[in-house]
Amino acid sequence: MVATVRRHIDTKGPGDVRDITAEVAAAVASAGVAAGVATVAVIGSTAGVTTIEFEPGAVADLNAVFEKLAPRDADYRHHERWGDDNGSSHVRAALLGPSLTVPVDGGALQLGTWQQIVLIEFDTRPRTRQFVVSIIGE
Amino acid sequence: MVATVRRHIDTKGPGDVRDITAEVAAAVASAGVAAGVATVAVIGSTAGVTTIEFEPGAVADLNAVFEKLAPRDADYRHHERWGDDNGSSHVRAALLGPSLTVPVDGGALQLGTWQQIVLIEFDTRPRTRQFVVSIIGE
Amino acid sequence: MVATVRRHIDTKGPGDVRDITAEVAAAVASAGVAAGVATVAVIGSTAGVTTIEFEPGAVADLNAVFEKLAPRDADYRHHERWGDDNGSSHVRAALLGPSLTVPVDGGALQLGTWQQIVLIEFDTRPRTRQFVVSIIGE
Repeated sequence: MVATVRRHIDTKGPGDVRDITAEVAAAVASAGVAAGVATVAVIGSTAGVTTIEFEPGAVADLNAVFEKLAPRDADYRHHERWGDDNGSSHVRAALLGPSLTVPVDGGALQLGTWQQIVLIEFDTRPRTRQFVVSIIGE
Repeated sequence: MVATVRRHIDTKGPGDVRDITAEVAAAVASAGVAAGVATVAVIGSTAGVTTIEFEPGAVADLNAVFEKLAPRDADYRHHERWGDDNGSSHVRAALLGPSLTVPVDGGALQLGTWQQIVLIEFDTRPRTRQFVVSIIGE
Repeated sequence: MVATVRRHIDTKGPGDVRDITAEVAAAVASAGVAAGVATVAVIGSTAGVTTIEFEPGAVADLNAVFEKLAPRDADYRHHERWGDDNGSSHVRAALLGPSLTVPVDGGALQLGTWQQIVLIEFDTRPRTRQFVVSIIGE
């Protein structure tokens, strides 16, 4: 069985980390899949998907490491090309990756209690983000 | 065809990188899938899964880069919240990601000769880790 | 439905980032899958797969961050073991990961307009790289 669910989320700008676990779980439930996998993918090259313990401290810590890794105000060759200001966004998104695959068993996402699926906005402005959940199983 | 295999592993603490290729290959063999994919996911927010040439040198080099990226003894806002000491663990795990999907063809995981599937313990103490292998194919 | 497509690409050496979106899209089209997922995986432990806006500026920016994170000329314990010079390659590849799963819907890869699937050569010399596209769906 294959199901595709599409959702939109309005982010507040750079470093906005959003817990989308409930939306993904609802997509799995509506697909009626007992066992298989759910792939969550954000559309676009300046956002990413991963898991984290979704509490403000851990989220701030993750953003701080991304800022150290690819500082927003550094010089980027991407800026020279388009006059854009989001070179750091592209680098961070490419490093993290746009998608995540989570096992489904007993009809439920196989995650830890303190492990949430998050969509991370890396762009330098608020964006309306589209993410796709593809559920495959039986 | 869908199969879900669950395994446990006792890690020795931070930076313990464990080669789980044989367990994943055995799960694929027991599922009897000739072609498809195997998704390997560790449950929890302070561990990760990737591939590496599994030899002590490369493993130490990877740990050294994680230590540079998110030093264990730095200040983390996650510590303030819970009195935890594993802010670095959460950041490293979120960056690496908890899961990996590997193609299966001819009944075998499609990996290089020097490419092993590893579970990485990022937490600051030994843990009993559960990982799930979801195999989908025909 | 399950399809496995295998492709080869000759890379030019370290930091060669190759847009393989068209090859992956062709594999999806030839599989005749309308909805499901495509997993793209590079074989080997010194290359990786992700998405990025494929333009020379963003690609150079990503390479610069990898060089900062795991400099090619730093000391690596992997070098001591084999006399290799590619410790940085192993670390970068393990961090990025060897595979990527992209949703397929309406027979098309679900990607943004400025989001391309890329294979990144991390090794210190040109390589003939094999990548596998596993398509699962209906």
